[in-house]
Parts: sequence; structure tokens; C-alpha cells
Amino acid sequence: MASRMVEVDPWEVAVTTLDPARIRFVESLMSLGNGHMGARGSFEEGYGGDSHLGTYIAGVWFPDRTRVGWWKNGYPEYFGKVVNAVDIGAIRIRAGGEPVDLFTVPCADFRFALDLRRGCLTRTFRCEAGGLALRVRFDRFLSIVTPELSFQRVEIEVEDGEGVLEITPLLDADVHNLDANYAETFWEPEPGVERRPGMLAMTTRPNPFGTPRFTVTAATRTRAEGLEPGDAWDDALSTGRTFAATVAPGDRVALDKAVAVVSSRDHEPRTHPAVASALLDAASSRPHGAHRADQAAAWAARWEQADVVIEGDPPAQQGIRFNVFQLLSTYYGEDERLNIGPKGFTGEKYGGATYWDTEAFLVPMYMSIAEPDVALALLRYRHRQLPQARHNARQQGLPGALYPMVTFDGVECHNEWEITFEEIHRNGAIAHAIRYYTDYTGDRSYLEAEGVEVLVEIARFWAGRVHWSARADRYMIHGVTGPNEYENNINNNWYTNYLARWVLRYTDEVLAGLPGRAAELGVDDAERERWRDVVARMYLPHDDALGVNVQHDGFLDKALAPVSALGDDDRPLNQRWSWDRILRSPYIKQADVLQGMYTFSEDFTTEEIRRNFAFYEPMTVHESSLSASIHSVLAAAIGMPEKAVELYSRTARLDLDDYNNDTEDGLHITSMSGAWLAIVQGFGGMRGLGERLRFAPFCPEGWRGYSFMIRYRGRLLRVAVGASSTAFTLVEGEPLEIEVGDGLVTVAADAPATVANRA
Amino acid sequence: MASRMVEVDPWEVAVTTLDPARIRFVESLMSLGNGHMGARGSFEEGYGGDSHLGTYIAGVWFPDRTRVGWWKNGYPEYFGKVVNAVDIGAIRIRAGGEPVDLFTVPCADFRFALDLRRGCLTRTFRCEAGGLALRVRFDRFLSIVTPELSFQRVEIEVEDGEGVLEITPLLDADVHNLDANYAETFWEPEPGVERRPGMLAMTTRPNPFGTPRFTVTAATRTRAEGLEPGDAWDDALSTGRTFAATVAPGDRVALDKAVAVVSSRDHEPRTHPAVASALLDAASSRPHGAHRADQAAAWAARWEQADVVIEGDPPAQQGIRFNVFQLLSTYYGEDERLNIGPKGFTGEKYGGATYWDTEAFLVPMYMSIAEPDVALALLRYRHRQLPQARHNARQQGLPGALYPMVTFDGVECHNEWEITFEEIHRNGAIAHAIRYYTDYTGDRSYLEAEGVEVLVEIARFWAGRVHWSARADRYMIHGVTGPNEYENNINNNWYTNYLARWVLRYTDEVLAGLPGRAAELGVDDAERERWRDVVARMYLPHDDALGVNVQHDGFLDKALAPVSALGDDDRPLNQRWSWDRILRSPYIKQADVLQGMYTFSEDFTTEEIRRNFAFYEPMTVHESSLSASIHSVLAAAIGMPEKAVELYSRTARLDLDDYNNDTEDGLHITSMSGAWLAIVQGFGGMRGLGERLRFAPFCPEGWRGYSFMIRYRGRLLRVAVGASSTAFTLVEGEPLEIEVGDGLVTVAADAPATVANRA
Repeated sequence: MASRMVEVDPWEVAVTTLDPARIRFVESLMSLGNGHMGARGSFEEGYGGDSHLGTYIAGVWFPDRTRVGWWKNGYPEYFGKVVNAVDIGAIRIRAGGEPVDLFTVPCADFRFALDLRRGCLTRTFRCEAGGLALRVRFDRFLSIVTPELSFQRVEIEVEDGEGVLEITPLLDADVHNLDANYAETFWEPEPGVERRPGMLAMTTRPNPFGTPRFTVTAATRTRAEGLEPGDAWDDALSTGRTFAATVAPGDRVALDKAVAVVSSRDHEPRTHPAVASALLDAASSRPHGAHRADQAAAWAARWEQADVVIEGDPPAQQGIRFNVFQLLSTYYGEDERLNIGPKGFTGEKYGGATYWDTEAFLVPMYMSIAEPDVALALLRYRHRQLPQARHNARQQGLPGALYPMVTFDGVECHNEWEITFEEIHRNGAIAHAIRYYTDYTGDRSYLEAEGVEVLVEIARFWAGRVHWSARADRYMIHGVTGPNEYENNINNNWYTNYLARWVLRYTDEVLAGLPGRAAELGVDDAERERWRDVVARMYLPHDDALGVNVQHDGFLDKALAPVSALGDDDRPLNQRWSWDRILRSPYIKQADVLQGMYTFSEDFTTEEIRRNFAFYEPMTVHESSLSASIHSVLAAAIGMPEKAVELYSRTARLDLDDYNNDTEDGLHITSMSGAWLAIVQGFGGMRGLGERLRFAPFCPEGWRGYSFMIRYRGRLLRVAVGASSTAFTLVEGEPLEIEVGDGLVTVAADAPATVANRA
Repeated sequence: MASRMVEVDPWEVAVTTLDPARIRFVESLMSLGNGHMGARGSFEEGYGGDSHLGTYIAGVWFPDRTRVGWWKNGYPEYFGKVVNAVDIGAIRIRAGGEPVDLFTVPCADFRFALDLRRGCLTRTFRCEAGGLALRVRFDRFLSIVTPELSFQRVEIEVEDGEGVLEITPLLDADVHNLDANYAETFWEPEPGVERRPGMLAMTTRPNPFGTPRFTVTAATRTRAEGLEPGDAWDDALSTGRTFAATVAPGDRVALDKAVAVVSSRDHEPRTHPAVASALLDAASSRPHGAHRADQAAAWAARWEQADVVIEGDPPAQQGIRFNVFQLLSTYYGEDERLNIGPKGFTGEKYGGATYWDTEAFLVPMYMSIAEPDVALALLRYRHRQLPQARHNARQQGLPGALYPMVTFDGVECHNEWEITFEEIHRNGAIAHAIRYYTDYTGDRSYLEAEGVEVLVEIARFWAGRVHWSARADRYMIHGVTGPNEYENNINNNWYTNYLARWVLRYTDEVLAGLPGRAAELGVDDAERERWRDVVARMYLPHDDALGVNVQHDGFLDKALAPVSALGDDDRPLNQRWSWDRILRSPYIKQADVLQGMYTFSEDFTTEEIRRNFAFYEPMTVHESSLSASIHSVLAAAIGMPEKAVELYSRTARLDLDDYNNDTEDGLHITSMSGAWLAIVQGFGGMRGLGERLRFAPFCPEGWRGYSFMIRYRGRLLRVAVGASSTAFTLVEGEPLEIEVGDGLVTVAADAPATVANRA
């Protein structure tokens, strides 16, 4: 872990050092998003040193030409990339003619703070430039009330000196993607949108792949206090105006900047000027402070059903709130054409928008901390992309549907054969999220209308992907990459085989409960008979002597050794070892067999989980940000609280403390649910499958207590875990019967329940 | 197979149709090389349609930046490419002001012929341009007497019309590589070489990888008959002079062009003008025809010890001679810093210069058809690159030396993890060539001086690459790609394990026979004990029920089915199927277990080979140009002559008949030994390992007979196989005892031996 730059505080993430080597890291931490758009926390006045200015509009992407050394049949032709878009945040400052640039001018009292409670960013500093000593304050937020709007305010007090102070708010569309495969730019000015002052319209360049082009129009409105308007310009790639004043000590000036960002995803390009102007008209009828108050109120409403309180461990408290804040900033279910990219709006790494992380790690959390519509929108996203998933399966010569590893539009983007073609377990996670949603909400309407269509196509894929091994007298799945990506092209990955079998059985059961639906979907008896045959005769590698499920056919032939046998120089393996050495080693990147036993924990005894955990965890290096949390949940379940806490601590502050030295590329958005899962499913023992919500809480040593909120079937529940007992309070909704440990407890509005913790 | 364009002739490859869609194919066929340089058979006068002009200088390469979608630890930073160099062949013609371009002007009696016996290319045609009807003849060859020299002659007879005829010989350095990863050019003019008329000096661009830059200087000298010299030019990228005459019907003009090409590999750049001028001075003291005669004599000497005669099958006769001609044009052992690239001097595909094909497929042939120095130079090439091979092993965290999959300078260039890091069987083929050379020649001096150093380092690699499987109580090799590249990242590939075990045993034996050498090389008893332990306890997958060696651990769990079960639309698999589908299918690209049983055929009974052949060959699609020949040799050995002939026919005319529709990219140089191996080792049953040369000849049905020449331990032997018996004649050297079938035969200069063929 790099040295801790962030002040520990329950509701704030603040940095007070200005280290030119860590600007990108700080920009990542201070990213803002509102579902519609987002931006890294770059300095409004500009920064001459190393930095990465990034602004991203949800659902606006570009199909970058695939780059590959050696083409393999079936590779996709393009890789959908999040597009770095027009910089809406820029507010340049010149003092006595000199640009205020914290890379070059003297600076003191620097403080950059993200207010997690209110969803707002504030940066203050003192500096000297052009003979003036200034005290500067920037405020900034992206509205979650009206997500097309960005609000900013800069206030400057002159502490010393006399001279001209200029402030220049602008929009700058001369941006390019960090990760463009061939250093191409992705935007061109859009001539079809009427040009107005302070407004820029850009369209993504034409592409040869037939994917949609996007037009994004940004329009700005400013209000200056104590400054006179000066020159304005409206160029092809930028628009702005300079405001100026001759100032003396004690003078204060200020400027408010509002920006409306509309895209062709929501509005016809020719309407953009009218739409943007209307948004800005409405916004400018109220002062900056009023919008800030709206923002704070909207965040308060989100926190009411999402907050997690940890008593006695301030760093842990800050970690969980930062993670929840960033996730809810990235996605809150407003648009079912959107999903959650691995870096959200905070960077470009990994390109595409949607990974299997959504279903495996995020849906369960969203189910509990927001209205069910949020998770439902994520499920509908996949249903909308069913035709593309069929296309993906066809690319591999297979029936049914294969959901992509990485995508924007549903068409697979990734081009590593061992991932694209082989990490197909993703196709099970998508099915399992449908079951989780249905069980958790008790609402079968999505399942019956859309979910079953997705299930049938995924089942067909699996039924086509298995092969019959005459020698083993079993169905097998060869040539896969499991969740442990430190092995590739393995045969009979236990997790994949188990998941595939479950999909076939569950889909068959769902159809059995929906008379007529099978016929509508063209599933005849022979097809279902085939599914049942695969279910009955699927090979699942298991070692009776060890009493463990076996990761894959060759695993036990490896030179098995624990991580503790590695030298200090060996880790992280992915930076120190040649890829082949990693592949043939026994070391596991992230949960694999254990991922399956976590997902299907109802199917296994505690003793079985304990045996498998004892076998695999010591060989696991947790080099995926998704690993530690799942292990923490399992460790909690099998009575290893110290291990659970150790693993929790690896996930809760991953970005805040830059554990992997890569937060500069952006935040690990899709693994941000990890800390929440570790607390709620791990320490709290919550399980959401089946007919009743279950808990088995304990309080980790070192914590005084913790509490979290749970949305469940129309109720809002507060679970407050103390050192020895847990209080369940019904905040909203009808009385609810839950399981706690081995007993049943009914919680009602006037009757909170308190239950002793498990040992 | 595309329709046959080539006239069948025993000593000539001629094309008489001018098909604009097949110019690249014809250019490939008509390629010339002389070990020092080579060029595709492009039209001297220029061609406006689709074509690929390519000129290559041996050992002159450029480290192109690696292109990869997803970087893996250990990947090389650059990929060495053969560099398309200055075009030395251009001789433009203008008639009445109009360029003679066979893409645009009317043309008749076109004939383009490669004289295999004399190593010379002739192209004749009649055409009309600018009011003149012309009969044109181009002659061209690259000298194998003085390999820095290229000779050309053009003769034009005016059949009709009057006007100005211009002939412009030139050198053109404005060339670029077809396969540059980022469309960069690889050359720049070299200012450090004194500029002289008719001379161009170019240097490969700077590179960031620290690999050498090369300067190539080309200088031309011309002699015109019936033409007056006109304007000359000397630009940065081209130099030339126009010769002209006003002509009338019956007039004949001619022009000889000689070009000297020298490179900084052989001469300091500042000496290039002097060296090139001296070469041209010497050359121009004799007429074109005298050089042609020298060339024919030099080729006659090569053919004396390399020719294969087939009676009764003209296409087969032409096929084998074309293959031998092209191989000897590519490499004849003059420079031990060189090797044999997959396309030789005939194209750019596959980039690098050296593959494992050299040792596995070419060394045994060169041993028999040329002086042993030729093969020895190939072995020394590897010894020179031992430091780089150590570097490659270190890149993977392994001891010893790993010879590269693809290279120019010994450093691995390829960047597919499943090949670069895993197709390590190549490291056994290099060791085995040392054994073959030593057994075949009876000369232990290379083995004892240099070979043993190579063997020890390869043995160390294998000893480090195996792992101990506690469960199996055996050493194993996980994560490899065998010769069958239609499976990747498999465990315990029988071929690889067998080869690795052999290397360890052989190296130990060699050291045992060289007292003191082990100590010199730092090999102590403990290390050799470890080798012996690996030899004793290496796991070799074998199925007792089937009686076959098993390709790898998972192979028998596949859905096994013969190639005959595939539909017509399925092949070639590598164009029709997604890569993952190929990988998990049972279909085999090229010999794998059978490659091992071929290499180590002494270790197996005929019955064992027959059982394995019967099991694997029906699942083999032979989609590698290296596959059919090995299977042909084995089929001959196990008494399946019809199968042997069928497989021979797939390899002998691969390029002449463009079987794979890819000859336009260049000739399949490294698989050109296949036809020779099928005849000599297959039909002739020759085996070169051990203390005596062995034969077991038969005559394929449909052939009247065939004969071939064999160099062996100072002798030159002619083996003439007739329908029922074979005559062994000693052309040169001391009497020799050989094995034929089960008996011993002594052949002496005055006592040829005739032995009955095997049944």
C-alpha cells in the first residue's frame, strides 16, 4: 500500500498534499458521477504536470478497431470504448497575466475534499501568481436531481497585490482517449446542430462496423460576481468567455458555471440547442446554493436506505461509505440501456461498459440498498441484448445465447481467445441474477415475462457447449477459463460445470411452472429431456480423499504449495512472473470453487465449505479486486472471524489507500460492492435466496458495532449489530418474519427484535 | 487446389497465362535466391495491377514494435521482420512514349519460365505500345558464384512500327513492408556512405531496442547495345539512367544490367562504394552469357549430389525438383549467422527468420544432399545464439536455455503466450539435430566442442521446467502446446515429455563420454543425478486398452471422431471454426504423437507405430504444410504404401499447384523438404541414426522407378529404386557397408549392389 494520503473521516474524503506524482490518483478518488455523466476530479484551472482529464457520458461509446498480434477465428472486429468527451469543468484563472497552475505557481493550504453525504466536491488553496496572492475555492457537483446538469462555483479572495484577475469558464472538446488502439480521435464537430454561443455539439466519428454514432451537445451559462465580461469565442472545438476585474487586497470575486449536457441517446440532435437552453434557463432561475441544497437532499434520501455505520473503526467506516457513494454515483437504475463499467466514470481502462461483475457482485447489493427497480433495470439490460447474445453464440458455432465478457451493445468486444471464447461461466452468472432477483423480491413477473426467455437461451448454450465423453460416461465441458483467470483453457472447471448444470435444471423447473411458455419459446420435450440428461450425467470433479471439489481436471497434479511458500519477490505474481509460470502454478487469482460454493451456499454443509476453504484459500493470492470479499463472506460463515476481518480490510479501502498502486487509472467501481458484501453477508450473515430473509450476525473484534439498511419486499429494515446482540428495526413497511441463526423472528414497526449474536 | 497454371516439365517451371488476379502467385513461384539475397519474380518493367514487389537481403532485419491486444508478462518488445529492401530488378521500358505495362498494353505469347537446372529466369512476350510492336525477352539470375551480384539482360526486337524506344534500368529504394505493424517504413538514406552515380546506400531506421542497424548499398552497371545513353538521375531513393533509340521494324536492342549488393553485415559502410565498384568491375570484364554459364555450372555441381529422379510421374518429378531448387536457393550454408525463414526470400509472412522447422525438417535433408558443412552451419547458428537462448529462459523464470519460436538474433520475437511460452518442444528438436548430425556424420567434433554446451543448457531448461506431481508420483510438464497447434496449454503432451526425457538422458550420456567436460560446464553430480531422476520418473501418458501413447492428459476425454465425420463446410477448420471449437475438438493439425514416433522411430516396433497411426491419422486434418510428409514416411514404414503416396502428393506440389490458396504470400520454404523426406525416408526407407545407414526401399505403384543421391560420411551414393529391386552405386568415396531391409550390403566404386525391394 502506498502511504495513506487521505484523511480519515466518516463522511469526507480529503487530501491536503499536492504531490505532482500522484495527481492522477487524486483525480480518480475525487471523481464525480450521476448516472448520466461523470468526470475525474481534475483541476478546473488546468494543471501543467502529469494528469488525466476525463469526462464521460453514459452510454456514449466508440467501436475502436481491434488490435491483435495474431488473429483468431471468431474475434470481434471492434472494441467498444468509453469515450473521453468534452471537458465541461474548465475554469481558467489568470492573475496579473500569469496562469494559475498549481504545477508551477507557489501554493499553500491546499485541500481537496469529497463530501460523501452531500455529493459535492470542494477544493481550496492559497497561491501567488502575477503579483497577486489569492485564496481560491472551487465547488462542483453533478446533479442527481437533473442529471443533465453540472454546477460549479469558484470564489476568489485577494489577499495581497493589485492587478488584473481573469476568470475564463469554457468548454473544451479537443480531447482524446488514453487507450485508443491506433491513437485516433473519436470525435468530430457536428454541423447538423445549430450553433449558439457557449454551446458545442460533437459527434463520434463514422465507423465501419455499423454501430450507432452519438451526438453530445454541451452548453454553458455563467454568472459572475465582481467581474466584467470580456472576450468570448466560439471555435470548432471550444467555446468560452473571459471575465475580468482589476483587484486589490480584500476584494472578492466569484463565478457560477452551469453546464447542460444532452446526447442523441435521449434527444434528437436538432433539438439539442432548445433542450439545453431550457435546462439552463430553469437552472439559472435559482442560485448555486439552492441547487447544492437539492443535491444534498437527494443524497440524503439515497443514504437513508443505503448507509452502513461502523462504530469503533473510522477507516473502515470511511471505506464502506466511499464505496457505496461511488457505486450509487455510477448507476442508480434510471436507464435500462446502461450498465456499470469496471471504472465507471473514473477512467478508461478495460474499455467496455459491462462485465459479469454486474450480476455476480453488484445486483445482490443493489437489491438491498435501493428500490428493486434499480436491479430490475440491470436485468432488463441483458434481456434487451438477447439478440446480440445470440449473435455471440453463433460466432462460436453454438446454439442459444452467450452474454459477452465485455460489451457496450451486447456484442462481444474482448479479443483474447482464452477469455472471449472460454471464460463462459459469465453466462451462468447472468442466469443466477434472475433467480436471485425473483427469490429476493418474491416478484415473479420479470422471470415470467422476460427472464425465462433469457434463461432458455442460456440453457441452450450450455446444452450445446457440453460434450459427451464416452470414456468417462459423463458430459464434460472442455476448454474454459474459470473465475480464476490464472488458469486458462482448462477442462471441467468445477465452478463452470456446476453453474451450467444449475442453469439447465433451473430453467427446466421454471418452464415446468409456466404452462405454455415452453411451447411459446419453441422448447419441446426432446430439448428438455436433453437438458435433464445433461443435469443427470454432468461430470463434477471431486476428490474423495481430500473431500474437496476439484478446481479442474489437472489441478491436483500440480505442485501444490501455499502462498506462504512464496518469496517476497514473487508477488504480485502478475507483475513478477511470466504468464506461463502463473498458469501452471497452483496459485489462484480469485475465488473459483469457492465462488461456486458462495453462490450456491445453500447446497453445501458448513463442513464442506470449511474443507474447501481450508484447501483453496491458502493457495489464493487475491490478485483480483473481487476475491477478498467473497472469501471474507465464506470465512465468516465457517467461523473464522479473524480471517473474515483480515480479508474485509483488503477490500474496504482498496482505492482510498491505493493498495494495488493502480487507482490512478480509475476506481475499481465493480468491486466496490465487496466491502458491503463482507459486512452484510459476511459479518451479518444475510442470505437472500429462498422464501425468507436470513441473518446470522456477529460483531468483529475491534468494532463496537455496526448497522446497515436492507430493502426487502417493500420493507426497509435497519440491522444494528452490537457486541453481543443484534437489533432488527422495521423502518418502513409491513411486519416481516425473518430467520436469525436457527430461529424465526418477526419484526414490526412497533416491535423491533433483538437477538443474541452467534458465537 | 486452384487450377494448375504451371506447365509440367522435369526441369522447368513455366507459366504462359497472364492472369491479373494471380500475379502475386506467379511472383512467388518465380522467386530467385542465392543465400545472400533474393527477390520475388516481379516484372522488371513494372506492373500496374495487383502485385507484391519484394527484395530481401539475408540477415537484414528490423525490430518492429510488438502489436498485442492484451500484454502478458514476458512478452518480447519487438518482432524481427525480414525487410523489403531496394528493388534491384527494375528495368522500365517506354515505346513511343508509352510505358510498357502488361496490365495495360496488349500482350501475346507471354511465357515466364524458371530454369531449375541452371538457376535462371526467362520471360518473353510480344506487346504493342506507343505504335511499336515489340518482342521482349528478359533474363535474370542471382549469382550463386558471387552472391553479391545480380545479372539481368533484356532484349527487344521491333516487329512493327517506328518510334523511340527507351529502356531505363534503375534502383528504387522507395519500398515498404507489407506486414509492418504500424505502417512504418524501415529504411532511411545513409549519408555516411559516399554517394556515387548509380549507387544507393540505405540504413534501417533507428530502433529503441538496441538491435543492430543495417546499411545496404546497391550499385548498378549497365551496358547497352543499339541504344544511346540519355538522362541519368541520382535521388535520395532512386538512381537510374535512360537509354534510347529510334527504331524501325527488324531492329534489335539489348541491355545488360549487373547490380552489386553489399551490406554492413559483411563490410563496413564506408567501404561499400569501393567493394561494390570492385565487384562490378570484375563482373563487367566478362559478357552476360559467360556469367550465365558459370551459374549453370555451379547449379550442375549442386544437382550432382542433390537430384531426385522420378520416372513415370512428371508432376511428381517437377514437384521434388522445384522444392529442392528453392531450398538450395534459400540456404547453402555459406554464412552461419543465417538460417531458413518460413518464406525464405519469397515473401514477408511470419516475419522472423528462424523456426524449429529448421532442425525438425530441414537439417536431415541438408545432411544428405549437400556437404556436411551446410548442416553444420545451421547447428553453429544455434550455438552462436546460446546467450540469447539463456535470456529467453530467464524471461520465463527458468534455468538453462530456451531456443525461440521465432527469431532473427536468438531473442524470442513471437507474442502469443500459448506459443511463445508454451510451444517449448522446439527446444528438444534443436538438441535432436545435434544427435542426428553426430550419428549421421560419425564426426563427434561439433558435439564435443559446441554441441555439448547447447545440450547442457537445454537439459537444464527441461530439468527446471518439469514439476513433481505428488499425487501421480511422477515428473510432469504442464501448460504446453505440442506440435499439434490445434490444442493449446495442455498437460503432459506425450511428444514434449518424451523429447524432454530424451534430452536429459542423451546429455547425461554425452557428458559421460567426455571426461572433464561436465566440470568445465559447471554440471556437478547432483545436477546429473537430478536429470537421471527426471528420466526415471517422467510421466508419459499411455492408454493400455487402446495401446497408444496419449497426446495429452485430456485427449481421450474428448468427443473422439474421425475427420471423415466432418461436413464439407467444416474444412479447413482454421477458416471455418471459432478457435475454441478447434481447440476442444479431437482434430489434429499436424503429427504430434506421430511426430515423436517418427523422430524416435528406433524406439518403437512397427506394430506400435501402426497402432498409433491407425488411431491418430484419421483425426488429423493436415492443415500444417509440415504434416503430410511425416505421415507419409510413417505410412511407408508400416506397410501402407497407398496412404504414403496419397500423403506424398499433398506435399510435393503444395506451391506449384497452390493447394492452400496462399502461395501468393510466398513459398512454403521450410516445408519444402517434405517431398524429399517422403521419397527418401518413406519410399526409400532411409534412416540415418546409429552407426550404419539403412534403407528399406519400395517403388510406389504408378512410378516406374526413382533415384536419389545421398551424401554420407565422405561418400556420394546413388540409390536407384526400380519396380522390384534397388541399385546402390557408390559415386564417390570409400566402400560403405549399409543395411538394406534386414541384411548388410557393401557398396564400392567398382561394385554396385542390387537388392530386392521390400514387399
